[in-house]
Amino acid sequence: MPSVFPLPAAMARALELARAAAAAQEVPIGAVVTRGGTIIGEGENRNRRDNDPTAHAEIVAIRAAAAHVGDFRLTDCDLYVTLEPCPMCAGAIAHARIARLYYGAEDPKGGGVEHGARVFAQAQCHHRPEVYGGLGEREAAALLLDFFAARR
Amino acid sequence: MPSVFPLPAAMARALELARAAAAAQEVPIGAVVTRGGTIIGEGENRNRRDNDPTAHAEIVAIRAAAAHVGDFRLTDCDLYVTLEPCPMCAGAIAHARIARLYYGAEDPKGGGVEHGARVFAQAQCHHRPEVYGGLGEREAAALLLDFFAARR
Repeated sequence: MPSVFPLPAAMARALELARAAAAAQEVPIGAVVTRGGTIIGEGENRNRRDNDPTAHAEIVAIRAAAAHVGDFRLTDCDLYVTLEPCPMCAGAIAHARIARLYYGAEDPKGGGVEHGARVFAQAQCHHRPEVYGGLGEREAAALLLDFFAARR
Repeated sequence: MPSVFPLPAAMARALELARAAAAAQEVPIGAVVTRGGTIIGEGENRNRRDNDPTAHAEIVAIRAAAAHVGDFRLTDCDLYVTLEPCPMCAGAIAHARIARLYYGAEDPKGGGVEHGARVFAQAQCHHRPEVYGGLGEREAAALLLDFFAARR
């Protein structure tokens, strides 16, 4: 489903990664980390392929970006992801000191940003990114709906 | 500080790993994953050494255990960690389907199990381990206090 709005290149790339995950029989979610507008790390869901319960798109992208810059903190970096992060990924975003989080579809069933654990809203959260939802929401949600509909 | 109680071998090993982290100038936290009483994965904090914001002891141990068994789910496995897990690690524990979580010291400032995000208590949490706190608490807390006191 094409977007009615033009998308930032970073979110368009995250959607490409989500489609690649679906093609590999993984839940279709993609993420990229940018600094100064340049992509410095990217990832797609790899749980099954990598036998790794932590291999969500955001974790893969954050690990790649941190390895790229040689620092465990990604200050001044932004993260684009096609779905609202779960508590694990929201926690990783806070630990990495990501400046801005842009996500596509919201996730009432598993999200940990606007739902449930609301990780960034807790007093225990040491760093809160700016959060912007809804960017590429239609495409991101359609990918997930198609993926799970085909498996029912 | 020796324990007044005998500790399970898995928690004794997690404390050894925490001491190794401190010796490497990392925050002293250690974790092991067991299945049927055998350690199948272990980890210590490696954020700085690995330039990886996700490299908490629990994440390292879970990834190692999942790679070892060749499955992204660690059903019937237990996790022993010296400190109450943060929201990122609690989320990873839920994703991995860990059966029982044993932790040492509680962490009012950063914990996400009994504090703040309370990840396992949310409706969005798809798997809740049994949770037992306080095992090796004195030793775990003393390691952390010594580490941060030396850096003040």
